Amino acid sequence: MDTPNKSVPRVVIIGGGFGGIQLAKHLKNAPVKVMMLDRHNYHTFQPLLYQVAMGAIPADSIGFPIRRIFTKQDNFRFFLTDVKKINPESNTVSTDIGDISYDYLVVATGSNTNFFGNKEIEHFAMPMKNIPEALNLRSLILQNLEKALVTKTYNEREALMTFVVVGGGPTGVELSGALAEMRQLILVKDYHGLKKQHMKVYLVEGKDRLLAAMTPKASQKAKEFLAKGEVTIYNNVHVQSYDGYELKIDDGKVIHTRNVFWAAGVKGELIDGIPEDTITRGSRILTDEISRVNGYENVFAIGDVAAMITSDMPNGLPGVAPAAMQQGQHLAKNIVHMIKGEPTVPFKYLDKGSLATIGRNKAVADLGIFHFQGFFAWLLWGFVHILTLAGFSNKLSVFLTWFLNYFNRNSDNRLVVRYFNTETMMTEPVAK
Amino acid sequence: MDTPNKSVPRVVIIGGGFGGIQLAKHLKNAPVKVMMLDRHNYHTFQPLLYQVAMGAIPADSIGFPIRRIFTKQDNFRFFLTDVKKINPESNTVSTDIGDISYDYLVVATGSNTNFFGNKEIEHFAMPMKNIPEALNLRSLILQNLEKALVTKTYNEREALMTFVVVGGGPTGVELSGALAEMRQLILVKDYHGLKKQHMKVYLVEGKDRLLAAMTPKASQKAKEFLAKGEVTIYNNVHVQSYDGYELKIDDGKVIHTRNVFWAAGVKGELIDGIPEDTITRGSRILTDEISRVNGYENVFAIGDVAAMITSDMPNGLPGVAPAAMQQGQHLAKNIVHMIKGEPTVPFKYLDKGSLATIGRNKAVADLGIFHFQGFFAWLLWGFVHILTLAGFSNKLSVFLTWFLNYFNRNSDNRLVVRYFNTETMMTEPVAK
Repeated sequence: MDTPNKSVPRVVIIGGGFGGIQLAKHLKNAPVKVMMLDRHNYHTFQPLLYQVAMGAIPADSIGFPIRRIFTKQDNFRFFLTDVKKINPESNTVSTDIGDISYDYLVVATGSNTNFFGNKEIEHFAMPMKNIPEALNLRSLILQNLEKALVTKTYNEREALMTFVVVGGGPTGVELSGALAEMRQLILVKDYHGLKKQHMKVYLVEGKDRLLAAMTPKASQKAKEFLAKGEVTIYNNVHVQSYDGYELKIDDGKVIHTRNVFWAAGVKGELIDGIPEDTITRGSRILTDEISRVNGYENVFAIGDVAAMITSDMPNGLPGVAPAAMQQGQHLAKNIVHMIKGEPTVPFKYLDKGSLATIGRNKAVADLGIFHFQGFFAWLLWGFVHILTLAGFSNKLSVFLTWFLNYFNRNSDNRLVVRYFNTETMMTEPVAK
Repeated sequence: MDTPNKSVPRVVIIGGGFGGIQLAKHLKNAPVKVMMLDRHNYHTFQPLLYQVAMGAIPADSIGFPIRRIFTKQDNFRFFLTDVKKINPESNTVSTDIGDISYDYLVVATGSNTNFFGNKEIEHFAMPMKNIPEALNLRSLILQNLEKALVTKTYNEREALMTFVVVGGGPTGVELSGALAEMRQLILVKDYHGLKKQHMKVYLVEGKDRLLAAMTPKASQKAKEFLAKGEVTIYNNVHVQSYDGYELKIDDGKVIHTRNVFWAAGVKGELIDGIPEDTITRGSRILTDEISRVNGYENVFAIGDVAAMITSDMPNGLPGVAPAAMQQGQHLAKNIVHMIKGEPTVPFKYLDKGSLATIGRNKAVADLGIFHFQGFFAWLLWGFVHILTLAGFSNKLSVFLTWFLNYFNRNSDNRLVVRYFNTETMMTEPVAK
């Protein structure tokens, strides 16, 4: 495995996210061998993680086996492994299954939750960047509702039924909207003994508006939709501390809660061996406009872990799936150009717009010059997400689940498959 | 919660399996309060656990939230809890959420894997009686195939690709058949580098035929189907030991394997407080013909944990879903009779027959005087299982998944959501 056939260049891709998958797919007919390394054997459709957390859709429906995506691609190989280090001086990567050499290396490791160095918050607040974490969230929400039913004191029950979402970007808005919808539609039906007015949902955002990457009109509408669903929104404030019981905000407010969901920031998922001087704000790797890591000939970075900072884009690209996918597709073409000795073509981002949903029949959309909110934005949101899901079976599964949930005003996937221990803040391991 | 309203008797059901669910449903219009206690918040459709283990269907599709089953049943309450002890002298059960009193108590705790006291086998062999265990199996199978791809020695690869199923009942036959089918259809397509002839599937059974509860013709056909799929079948032998590497059989054979799946026996899932003298072979509770535990007035046991031994049925009922369901339905009627002071009616088991599938287009069926094997038995098997699944969404999900898998000759749910550690023989806990 460690000596590539010199006649056919080997492209090693670290990460099977949106960028890595598109890159590998677009190298299908290229004169290369493609090797993908990932610590999961599946691709995750991250935009719907919050629905898995809410028990609205099955966990399996947003994961798709990477091998299965490439069943028919002969020049593709996959290895399930953790990459420990990249060694650009020897053109190899060190992994737990040995060293692997490359002709072209693409770092497409994505991003992870950013707790901005606060260890206490990191311990007690729940992140949601992959399927196991979303299932942990699901377990915590459902376990705490079950506990609320049998708890002795008013204060304890209040804390168990208080949900605080930190971060007012798309994930925070969608998650808090879904919690409000659960309170409205499901709580009173399936949890006899719990009252709607006892369940509280908060959304805490540091900026002066929600969905700061969208238009002010979209922000305003999202706020209205959430307020209508009785989500309490705090803008212009930051979380100071959370010890598992009390969440302190920098304006002096204290919220008693056992459920804090952290959607307040991401950082690039770096690997050892990437030189310090190529790393910029948010732990992202600086690249030029063909995704090449500054200072290297054959090392590239795409997607959330990359910072392609150009004069047009002083902050780099937004950390969204379409940007990663476009970079992957574009880099595939440039790798072929490089192999053939042809000039490379600079990347141009095509911003197709932004969407965020707030729950049943409600979403906001900014599409170029079109800005709209409400039912049609919501339909479009659903349509776009189903189209982007990997695999026909997942498209069908999510579509039908949504269809049934919509008409049942309930959901069937609220299973606590593994218990979440609120002392250790870990799932309980299941023996054998 | 501890003082029932004396005017309305309280029926406490321990366990939300096939028996408990049917009992609670059939008490919908009875003059009782129904309280169900379970350590999971969902009902598990155990007959399809092996398909979850194989990554053929989503885990969520065979679990259904217990609360959701009873959304419209006003006299039903559910509590997520572990029952520690039953106290018949005080008509209470001790749980981790406090003591609960009852007027009628029904033990419907089902069965668990029986390792017949062999601690080493219990540690290293994989059971499959609930969803977390099936997901562990899935992780192990997929992780070991991934390891086989990068392993250095022939012996190591052989052990990683050798699968031994112990127990030739329906579960063992279905699981080994599914493994053979995976080798035939999926291995060469999705695991470039692994060869079909390197993957071995064994089925080890103590009796002289498979499916001993079915007709000799069904046993014979099942054996033929499995042999055609190149499953190596050992009859009349027992596993002596398994240390994680070597499986020793009592005829002297040794199989080098990292994958041993234990489907060789079950035992009743007992609770403290059930008197020793009511417990019989297989840790089951002796009951009379109205499911009443010997020596008690108001304590009952149904399903796999019960041994209703009568002159007609000297071994009790078979440990299958239809028997538990019928007992649950029947007991509901008798509880109403008892409340009204009417005479109770003895239980009569209606044996609807047995089915087992061996994989694509192959199954065996014994239905009263009708015995048939092959394609129609397979269609019937699928039909019966989909009809019995709880919830329309699960019926639809399993039906469509099977439909797609059948035509794709592949499956899309082979996700390792939590890693299985072959040192500790536990899943890796996922922090936050």
